[in-house]
Amino acid sequence: MFHKILIANRGEIAVRIIRACREMGIKTVAVYSEADKDALHAQLADEAVCIGPAPASESYLNMERILSATVATKAEAIHPGFGFLSENSKFVRMCEKCNVVFIGPSADVIDKMGNKSQARKTMQEAGVPVVPGTKEPVYTAKEALEEAKKIGFPIMIKASSGGGGKGMRVSESEADFEENFNTAQRESINSFADDTMYLERYVGRPRHVEVQILGDKFGTAVQLGERDCSIQRRHQKMIEESPCCAITKEIRKKMGETAVRAAKAVGYESAGTIEFLLSETGEFFFMEMNTRIQVEHPVTEFVSGVDLIKEQIRISAGLPISVKQEEIQVKGHAIECRINAENPKKNFMPCPGKIENLYLPGGNGVRIDTAVYSGYQIPPNYDSMIMKVIVYDKDRESAIAKMRSTLGEVVIEGVQTNLDFQYDILNQKDFLEGNVTTHFIEEHYE
Amino acid sequence: MFHKILIANRGEIAVRIIRACREMGIKTVAVYSEADKDALHAQLADEAVCIGPAPASESYLNMERILSATVATKAEAIHPGFGFLSENSKFVRMCEKCNVVFIGPSADVIDKMGNKSQARKTMQEAGVPVVPGTKEPVYTAKEALEEAKKIGFPIMIKASSGGGGKGMRVSESEADFEENFNTAQRESINSFADDTMYLERYVGRPRHVEVQILGDKFGTAVQLGERDCSIQRRHQKMIEESPCCAITKEIRKKMGETAVRAAKAVGYESAGTIEFLLSETGEFFFMEMNTRIQVEHPVTEFVSGVDLIKEQIRISAGLPISVKQEEIQVKGHAIECRINAENPKKNFMPCPGKIENLYLPGGNGVRIDTAVYSGYQIPPNYDSMIMKVIVYDKDRESAIAKMRSTLGEVVIEGVQTNLDFQYDILNQKDFLEGNVTTHFIEEHYE
Repeated sequence: MFHKILIANRGEIAVRIIRACREMGIKTVAVYSEADKDALHAQLADEAVCIGPAPASESYLNMERILSATVATKAEAIHPGFGFLSENSKFVRMCEKCNVVFIGPSADVIDKMGNKSQARKTMQEAGVPVVPGTKEPVYTAKEALEEAKKIGFPIMIKASSGGGGKGMRVSESEADFEENFNTAQRESINSFADDTMYLERYVGRPRHVEVQILGDKFGTAVQLGERDCSIQRRHQKMIEESPCCAITKEIRKKMGETAVRAAKAVGYESAGTIEFLLSETGEFFFMEMNTRIQVEHPVTEFVSGVDLIKEQIRISAGLPISVKQEEIQVKGHAIECRINAENPKKNFMPCPGKIENLYLPGGNGVRIDTAVYSGYQIPPNYDSMIMKVIVYDKDRESAIAKMRSTLGEVVIEGVQTNLDFQYDILNQKDFLEGNVTTHFIEEHYE
Repeated sequence: MFHKILIANRGEIAVRIIRACREMGIKTVAVYSEADKDALHAQLADEAVCIGPAPASESYLNMERILSATVATKAEAIHPGFGFLSENSKFVRMCEKCNVVFIGPSADVIDKMGNKSQARKTMQEAGVPVVPGTKEPVYTAKEALEEAKKIGFPIMIKASSGGGGKGMRVSESEADFEENFNTAQRESINSFADDTMYLERYVGRPRHVEVQILGDKFGTAVQLGERDCSIQRRHQKMIEESPCCAITKEIRKKMGETAVRAAKAVGYESAGTIEFLLSETGEFFFMEMNTRIQVEHPVTEFVSGVDLIKEQIRISAGLPISVKQEEIQVKGHAIECRINAENPKKNFMPCPGKIENLYLPGGNGVRIDTAVYSGYQIPPNYDSMIMKVIVYDKDRESAIAKMRSTLGEVVIEGVQTNLDFQYDILNQKDFLEGNVTTHFIEEHYE
């Protein structure tokens, strides 16, 4: 096992990793920017190294400085957390050259999964369902319609060069296909000077459901159940829960097995997530693989009892996953709410500042992951997420009641937060009934 | 289900109960003394009623005032927590007369278990092992020796009127029996003017192991595993854990079944605890039954996943226990450390005062039950326990590592606490090896 690990991150995830290391008897090195000199992660680690000014490019994204700090402190491994360098294959290769263990998958796997079209191809070959679509580009409405009939309606018409919603149309049936195709293609020509189009099955009212997996150096891969992360605002997850209340036992089993197959197909080593789009009819399609620990990992820890950070460290040290698939039991229900320093009434504008007073509740089934404290000055340079409130109870209804009770107790004075907004979601009829899709926030609040 | 419950307690247990009620959709009424006007429990409850001056006899023990507050606020039930009126059968009878539900067992059961000799007799009749001893008093060394031979050596010779160690001797074998008997009896005559003696098997180096039970109005009783509470200072528990690392699967099963038999024998309705003395050889003997929720209940909640406060409320509302015996799985390991505002260097003198700064860690498997906050003034009138730190991990070794890590993070400024003392225990070789008895603190620290 490692004797010392450098944590190349900040905030609650850095604190989370430091705690796991300390429990495993591993010394820790924190790195921090000048803006983070009073940050909790720098205070909690055994050693702390300042790696530069506030802009991430000068510190948390500065590979040379992080590797210098690693070598100087004689740390044997780097845990990248999430964001920053966590999915940067160049950094992984630099670590290898410096003889430092990167706690995560190999550079090749990161590359393979980072390229969306390559990831789609790899997954298809492994028998993982992807959203059905054209394999080759299409250029005319006529040839496109032939393809569309094969794929099925409703169908999404997309410009290859598209982005920001431009060159994109949904066609409900053959009747409106030609018109929509021509409109989308015209937009693409006008906006991107490109008439290359492709088609994809349109999945209406989908959920975002992802499966947590672990793979080790012995070729073993296990799955730890799924998370429903449909409550998102502009593709930023806000609330995550496990299990997903909308899938049957059969779909759960199939999804879990698919995720394990996906992990094995790429020889995945570490904690990772296979993200699926779940249709209203229970079909699911591969979206992407996240080759890192995720913000929402605590919900899985609550329902499975497996410490994912410790598993990552064990796996990178060459040990096998500590639990067998048949030992993993998903029990009860966990929910996470992300608390951001932001103002929901001003378009969710980030609101850094000083936390004048902080009261965090505790008790049975309540976990709070945070790096803020009373008197802490939130710097304006980083992500606005300051806290994750995670609760666990015997079923979804009880967990929601516990989350409401817990959020109701939290006191954060001095900065604006989305606490009330989160609380409001927890009281929406559709949320209570488990009737959520990725459109939930826009449909209920915009 | 009840609509409103009054909590006749203060501190962390009052907060714990308020949270459980809120999660169940039940309104809460806090009562508080004048010394507790800024107490958290009074702030968190839906309503709060001041019931008198600081001395408990004038407030938390004042039955009339508490019942008046209950009637005035139209609460339908009273949760007594632990201590104060929780095992007061007179109060239970008063509640009945006022048509208020007391959340706990019946007055008769409290009386039956409160009287030690009656409890011993009841348990014996139910086939629960008690420490073997004389049934009738003995007066001469000769007749006592005959009885001693039947009971077995080593044996404890006790004066009926004894106390404070006077009139008490341990005899190792027949050879030293007469001398010890005569000395003990002489002491008793000199100190208490009473030559009445009795004998009891001497259990050397015992552990305090207790079993958590639940009984409901349908005659069902279940057990939720045991807690090892051997780490005590002057009969005050300091550290509790579940499961007990010193018993085999067979003893655990037998102990659990015995506890259920004990609960059923008295028709027990609510949460309760059967305390056993566990000998080095694995024999266990009934000590007493606690007819209330206990300070250390969170360790059982962690390993069993059952919310004991919610079960108490359900049972008192006439509902059955929500889990079946075969569904209760004790998994992993939980430890609780009681943090007191006291000075271990000055004979554990209580140290009330103002908490100038407070930082409480969180994270995976960490639960903190407390009613203190930054700026809170601990009143001098009550118990010195200000916080319970409870951790959960996959096994004892990991849980100890987590507790050390967690205690190491706690910051309490302004008052003295036993944090360092607790931390020290967690580093004692004997503790780490699970080699603990009720003599642990005196043997290692006195």
